[in-house]
Amino acid sequence: MRNAFAPCLTLCAAAIGISGLSSLFSPVAHAATLAPEAAQQQAQASYREYLDLLSIPNDSVAPEDIRRNVAWLEQAFRKRGFTTQPLDNDGKPMLFAEYPGKQASRKTVLFYMHLDGQPVIPSQWAQKSPWTPVLKKKGAKGDWEEIDMANLFSGAVDPEWRVFGRSSSDDKGPIMMLLAAIDAMKAAGTQPAVNIKVILDSEEEKGSPSIGKVMQAHRDLLACDGMIIHDGPMHATNRPTLIFGNRGAAKAKITVFGPKAPLHSGHYGNYVPNPALRLASLLGSMKDDSGRVTIPGYYAKVRLGDAERRIMAAVPDDEKALKARIGIAQAEKVGANYQEALQYPSLNVRGMAAAAVGDKVANIVPDKAEAELDLRTTPDSDAAYLGKLIEQYIAKQGYHLVKGTPTDEERARYDKLASFSYQSEGANAAGSPMDSPVAKWAYQGVTGTFGTSPEPVRIRMMGGTVPTAEIVDVLNVPFVIIPLVNADNNQHAANENLRLGNYVNGVRTLYGLMTAPF
Amino acid sequence: MRNAFAPCLTLCAAAIGISGLSSLFSPVAHAATLAPEAAQQQAQASYREYLDLLSIPNDSVAPEDIRRNVAWLEQAFRKRGFTTQPLDNDGKPMLFAEYPGKQASRKTVLFYMHLDGQPVIPSQWAQKSPWTPVLKKKGAKGDWEEIDMANLFSGAVDPEWRVFGRSSSDDKGPIMMLLAAIDAMKAAGTQPAVNIKVILDSEEEKGSPSIGKVMQAHRDLLACDGMIIHDGPMHATNRPTLIFGNRGAAKAKITVFGPKAPLHSGHYGNYVPNPALRLASLLGSMKDDSGRVTIPGYYAKVRLGDAERRIMAAVPDDEKALKARIGIAQAEKVGANYQEALQYPSLNVRGMAAAAVGDKVANIVPDKAEAELDLRTTPDSDAAYLGKLIEQYIAKQGYHLVKGTPTDEERARYDKLASFSYQSEGANAAGSPMDSPVAKWAYQGVTGTFGTSPEPVRIRMMGGTVPTAEIVDVLNVPFVIIPLVNADNNQHAANENLRLGNYVNGVRTLYGLMTAPF
Repeated sequence: MRNAFAPCLTLCAAAIGISGLSSLFSPVAHAATLAPEAAQQQAQASYREYLDLLSIPNDSVAPEDIRRNVAWLEQAFRKRGFTTQPLDNDGKPMLFAEYPGKQASRKTVLFYMHLDGQPVIPSQWAQKSPWTPVLKKKGAKGDWEEIDMANLFSGAVDPEWRVFGRSSSDDKGPIMMLLAAIDAMKAAGTQPAVNIKVILDSEEEKGSPSIGKVMQAHRDLLACDGMIIHDGPMHATNRPTLIFGNRGAAKAKITVFGPKAPLHSGHYGNYVPNPALRLASLLGSMKDDSGRVTIPGYYAKVRLGDAERRIMAAVPDDEKALKARIGIAQAEKVGANYQEALQYPSLNVRGMAAAAVGDKVANIVPDKAEAELDLRTTPDSDAAYLGKLIEQYIAKQGYHLVKGTPTDEERARYDKLASFSYQSEGANAAGSPMDSPVAKWAYQGVTGTFGTSPEPVRIRMMGGTVPTAEIVDVLNVPFVIIPLVNADNNQHAANENLRLGNYVNGVRTLYGLMTAPF
Repeated sequence: MRNAFAPCLTLCAAAIGISGLSSLFSPVAHAATLAPEAAQQQAQASYREYLDLLSIPNDSVAPEDIRRNVAWLEQAFRKRGFTTQPLDNDGKPMLFAEYPGKQASRKTVLFYMHLDGQPVIPSQWAQKSPWTPVLKKKGAKGDWEEIDMANLFSGAVDPEWRVFGRSSSDDKGPIMMLLAAIDAMKAAGTQPAVNIKVILDSEEEKGSPSIGKVMQAHRDLLACDGMIIHDGPMHATNRPTLIFGNRGAAKAKITVFGPKAPLHSGHYGNYVPNPALRLASLLGSMKDDSGRVTIPGYYAKVRLGDAERRIMAAVPDDEKALKARIGIAQAEKVGANYQEALQYPSLNVRGMAAAAVGDKVANIVPDKAEAELDLRTTPDSDAAYLGKLIEQYIAKQGYHLVKGTPTDEERARYDKLASFSYQSEGANAAGSPMDSPVAKWAYQGVTGTFGTSPEPVRIRMMGGTVPTAEIVDVLNVPFVIIPLVNADNNQHAANENLRLGNYVNGVRTLYGLMTAPF
């Protein structure tokens, strides 16, 4: 569904009218709701397994660790009635699980999570080991203080307590939330409203290089009507969050050539064209003063309807606080707000250099000037599309583009010489319609539990790049990313943690989803 | 005479008409001419002393070496009838010498040369020691082959032979040429047409930091009607060369501030203004596509008349060969030719940096971007004038200029934040009218000997920066720089050398100058 945004949303919005799109997100009464107390109880009953799971190292550089996780998870799913099947992946298997009672009349949802974790540097952790989870509460000074793990199993659990350990949030927490939600359904005697399939990736933290191959090999097994990806952090407000895509990443490099060798700036200043100034002029012309890319066609494929704009404007981003934290007075004017800005491909100068600044500066005309760009791509504007536009733009500014270093003949012939290269960083953008069937189902599942006041946070496209495209491309079904963990979970870093209130709400979310009619 | 160009030349050109300026440079019959054979003979007679002088180390970091040079030179000038006076300079004296027979009715010319030399790295020299001069001729393969020094004293001396040794060209050669020219006058029974004073600087290779102070202390002793500076290389064609000024050097630095810290380019690309792009836009707007500075007023003080343009166009620069050597197809269009380009102040980006390029590149929005500039100044457009114009220009582009790093309050208040600093590099521009009395006298002295076909090379302003301003400022008289040594003398480097044909012509030049009526 990588390129699904523009055609579908445009058609849908046209068909149903702008107010119609909004009405698609009204809650319906069918989803079952897990009461907070019941969720708390089921969560608490699952914490022993959660701590067990966190104690198994899961950096995918160690295949034997991945296999230990898979074996542990296989028994945890089986215990709950799932059929399971490790999916071979060069010694680092992924795990497939399917809930019993599949019905042809029901839609099938594939839940994606990952069992692997980021590498650790144990010395940076404020606990004995990242693989020995600990329970902490916030002290009077705002520091995290360890408390006895026994607190987790007797009496009330404070939702603000946190479990610290690698993958507590990313992404073992959500796996356990799903299992606890199953337990809750069983306890309530409730049947799921959809057929439930689960796939647990084993190399997500390496950019999911193998998920496509594994899914391709098991297309029939994984067949579904939509995917739900439980990964990443919720919106900073901790409101229920639905995400429909993310930008991809591409890189590009421009080198503008000057004289063959650096020249004395006294003898040649005002005579020999300065490549740093030329690069500056070239780059400077690529954006206008408001920060919008001026290269023709750069934003041409992005189509946003009024309904989508309204949903984006409703995301409770505190831009005033954001700007203060970043230290800027004004944002670029690419979009009307932060969310809207992220719908467009970006052109970012991530590095620039000519000769030296500081101690090593010398009075020379540099021989070349370089700029490293990164382009965040969108489903309809990929690396090839954007790279070609930039290349054409550079040529149109009078540059003759060379491969490598210009020859003497090229130097004699062309006034302006540059090289330009671009390529995807291997992570493409992904996008799925905000009103796809699975999106409507997810909205109902979430609002059936948490209501619509306030509305869930709906994010059309995250600015950053995660391997969603790799995950969703093979099956080519619509998807929704539904993060469940607290935004301040120290994901990827030391002292990763999960807020237990999020664990409980995650169980409620999954219960709501699985029992919502599709 | 630092600022003498514009007012005088403009007035003069107006008074005499444009063709009048040209006629000022017609040769007159009064200068005595030293025949090549006689010059060759006097040169040869002086070579023993020349080699002696070259054998005394003269890096001014060693005051005792400077004193040894001064003592040697004092006897050499006295032997020829000069009165001499070491001028105290913190242990590194300069030497003043005056030729006897001063007449109040005659104009007085002060000849400037320097006795100190650049530091040496003996291992880089293709001879035993930089302080043991050797004689070489060009071999069949174009290599320099040592030949017996005895060749210098018996039989004909090939003008293409060269003496290799530190300061052979820069600047002991010209000192000895002057002494040999005195010998030639004595041998011919000729009287000089001007009163002759000489000052030998002892710290020129350190940028003449002390010359101003020493000259100030001896203003009356040094009083003169004009200065002749024998230093630096002749035009590459080896034609007689008259130079009337050189640009100065100033430095400036622009820092454009972005977010407080580097930010994730996925989350913030398209939202947080990129300081590298802003710096690029700012710098890029400072020059137009032809390379001309667009900052209002930058070139406003430069006034060139048609006569000067003709003189500059007549300089036999081989721009085609120059461009091929440099590796550019087209020069900037600041001036109609290379010489004209150097009449204007320059704005050169000597270094530029934001975050990293190459191995260390990261997907971030940089927190700042920096550009180091060097500005070549002209007598009427000094560092303060140009720096202020750039500062005003930056402010006019909407930047709030801060000292150091912006505060949170400044960040909240101003969209565009930058810092800008500038300062002279301690070397100011110098310029003297091309038609000053001493310039006319010098032209006559040179053309009286070498004729006007071809014309001497007249350079209004060198692009590079040498300490002329320091040398001429105290006396505030017009000056001409008359280099005498071959352009390929390896000045400042290993294997410095002097072409003996230049030595002989230097003797003829000085003879012609000293006998030309002022």
